[in-house]
Amino acid sequence: MTSQKTPIAPPKLGEPYLLTPGPLTTAYETKEAMLRDWGSWDGDFRAMTAEMRTRLLDMLGPGKEEFDCVPMQGSGTFAVEAMLGSLTARDSKILVLANGAYGQRSAKTLAYLGRDHVVLDKGDYLPPRGDEVAQILADDPAITHVVAIHCETSSGILNPVGEISDAVYAAGRKLLIDSMSAFGAIELRPSEVRFEALVSSANKCIEGVPGFGFVLARKSELEAAKGNCQSLSLDVHDQWAHMEKTGQWRFTPPTHAVAAFLTALRAHEAEGGVAGRGGRYTANRDTLVAGMRDIGLETLLQDRWLSPIIVTFFCPDDPKFSFDRFYDLMKAKNFIIYPGKLTIVDSFRVGCIGQMDEHVMRQVVEATRETLNEMGVTNAAPPEIAIKERAKLAA
Amino acid sequence: MTSQKTPIAPPKLGEPYLLTPGPLTTAYETKEAMLRDWGSWDGDFRAMTAEMRTRLLDMLGPGKEEFDCVPMQGSGTFAVEAMLGSLTARDSKILVLANGAYGQRSAKTLAYLGRDHVVLDKGDYLPPRGDEVAQILADDPAITHVVAIHCETSSGILNPVGEISDAVYAAGRKLLIDSMSAFGAIELRPSEVRFEALVSSANKCIEGVPGFGFVLARKSELEAAKGNCQSLSLDVHDQWAHMEKTGQWRFTPPTHAVAAFLTALRAHEAEGGVAGRGGRYTANRDTLVAGMRDIGLETLLQDRWLSPIIVTFFCPDDPKFSFDRFYDLMKAKNFIIYPGKLTIVDSFRVGCIGQMDEHVMRQVVEATRETLNEMGVTNAAPPEIAIKERAKLAA
Repeated sequence: MTSQKTPIAPPKLGEPYLLTPGPLTTAYETKEAMLRDWGSWDGDFRAMTAEMRTRLLDMLGPGKEEFDCVPMQGSGTFAVEAMLGSLTARDSKILVLANGAYGQRSAKTLAYLGRDHVVLDKGDYLPPRGDEVAQILADDPAITHVVAIHCETSSGILNPVGEISDAVYAAGRKLLIDSMSAFGAIELRPSEVRFEALVSSANKCIEGVPGFGFVLARKSELEAAKGNCQSLSLDVHDQWAHMEKTGQWRFTPPTHAVAAFLTALRAHEAEGGVAGRGGRYTANRDTLVAGMRDIGLETLLQDRWLSPIIVTFFCPDDPKFSFDRFYDLMKAKNFIIYPGKLTIVDSFRVGCIGQMDEHVMRQVVEATRETLNEMGVTNAAPPEIAIKERAKLAA
Repeated sequence: MTSQKTPIAPPKLGEPYLLTPGPLTTAYETKEAMLRDWGSWDGDFRAMTAEMRTRLLDMLGPGKEEFDCVPMQGSGTFAVEAMLGSLTARDSKILVLANGAYGQRSAKTLAYLGRDHVVLDKGDYLPPRGDEVAQILADDPAITHVVAIHCETSSGILNPVGEISDAVYAAGRKLLIDSMSAFGAIELRPSEVRFEALVSSANKCIEGVPGFGFVLARKSELEAAKGNCQSLSLDVHDQWAHMEKTGQWRFTPPTHAVAAFLTALRAHEAEGGVAGRGGRYTANRDTLVAGMRDIGLETLLQDRWLSPIIVTFFCPDDPKFSFDRFYDLMKAKNFIIYPGKLTIVDSFRVGCIGQMDEHVMRQVVEATRETLNEMGVTNAAPPEIAIKERAKLAA
């Protein structure tokens, strides 16, 4: 894949790059769109909401006509809860496919909502596979819905939603996808992978600022969702019905974040849409991973499973390495990295998304090399247990 | 009361003044604070969250030590639902004091949550009085909590929370206050008016941009709230416990809106805190009301009940008047007004909050006078029924 060759301008106000899975480093132009105020009731803002919804739907490609876009105030987790609570019925039973924190969070959300559910827990990162899903659905006919995490940013793995979807619909069930950190950079077309709804948020691959999420759902599901939700604020059906009727959000929208997002959506299109954005992130990841491996750092995942969103690296097995010091020294070089979330092995994560390109990723690699030198870490290799852990995925 | 005499600068980018109850016209400096990105996990942002919480608590004055501040992502309604769902138990019974859309919305929220509740419905604007509350509580010992709306922006009335609080605690019950549109401009001190929690949001009298709300609650109530909430996203106890432990929000915060809010909070202090802000809004209202009455327009409420937040005016009883045309002509003069919400009489509303002063309010009056002339409205007086309606409040 090709990537953008003109270097992306660094943060204009000199703040650190956010090598994190959102909030992320956004374009200055995106933030500049927040320098004025809008009335949420006014026609100008209604037109902005309409354009945003249309642009998001367009990313679905063929079959988008069967879907509608429902933005939802709050963080991405609010939008996930809104989707789960609104697009399943009170007597639904949901299978959650978990291999990290976000799958676990969906299960926790369903427990809060009192929705019957079971969890396929694959541990820290192993992907849920189509045949496993098929078996569980065959064994439990009460299951009505399956929830899958597209990119599980706990490990950075790109889960096999295609084979999961095949298994779900072969068994006559419905698929809901948490595509929070992937949508906009990794194609997810209903004409290729069937699903009822997906959810993402403003501050991920579209490169907006945080403040709201959105659900892209089949209109048939939105229509059928009336009365499902036990929360007024998070009722996707009610938000959708009101927006269809009035063009307005039911409750005060984050007007400035919406304005920023619209600018970001236009930039996304100008970069070549999902393919262009995904191409840049892939080049970011490839540059990062090659450079870090050159230093001696190793990735948790084999190449096949690496997403272009965020990469988990094992911490060096050197007593001179401490994550907190590493974090501070990297921040002093203007790079904010992210802690790991593995339970068995110490790790850290580096995001590939946001207003960054290969040039920046090379700087990240150089900063890492310098920082390890400053710390006196001479061997960046992980402990033996990390290699053993990784072998589980190959098996 | 005195007011700031140096004219406030008009919107730098020339957008219309928002004479609406939030989103509102904010200072350019407030929006400029959004021109950089922050990592939500990073220490710099945690310090911003801590300062914000401290500054909000400080506004409570004496007795603030017994309270804590829990910010909540989403619109103000999300924060209200979070308060209602978290600070009442599943077997609580709640009395909602309603005299407009926001009281009704609290009742609707409780219906969604499945919480037992009764509504004292005073119609479009009549205030719930202390003796009425006392009677209801005496008649129904099952009621555990009372929810009051501080300023009901449907009509602009300032409800008598002092006498309501007296009645609630004389009966040994607990008071929760929706102070959405009043907090920061109208004193609400637990040393003077007892309550368990209040809720407000970023884009009201503190003059931030929309994106989150906050609950100020007694620590004893926050501690006791574990397990009450049926929503992960809106669980105030969980948000509080996590924030106390880590200094972080549980889920991605609206980082830019928080940065803007912190700038707005500092400006609020510089203006003289609640008294200074309330003084300016009061002068805004007085200038507006005097000028509009001079044109012949009449307010829904007698002076005693007028809040310094938003004022409802009756529409002129002239066939040449139409609200839509009035709205468009006022917008052409760079003023965005707000439609009315009365069920019996046509009305419109003008907000007094945001980055505006008496100079601006005089311009609003002049724009109104010109607009009515353009429309050919020669008599701005309301219909007879409006005067009869208003007489209900005097009785």
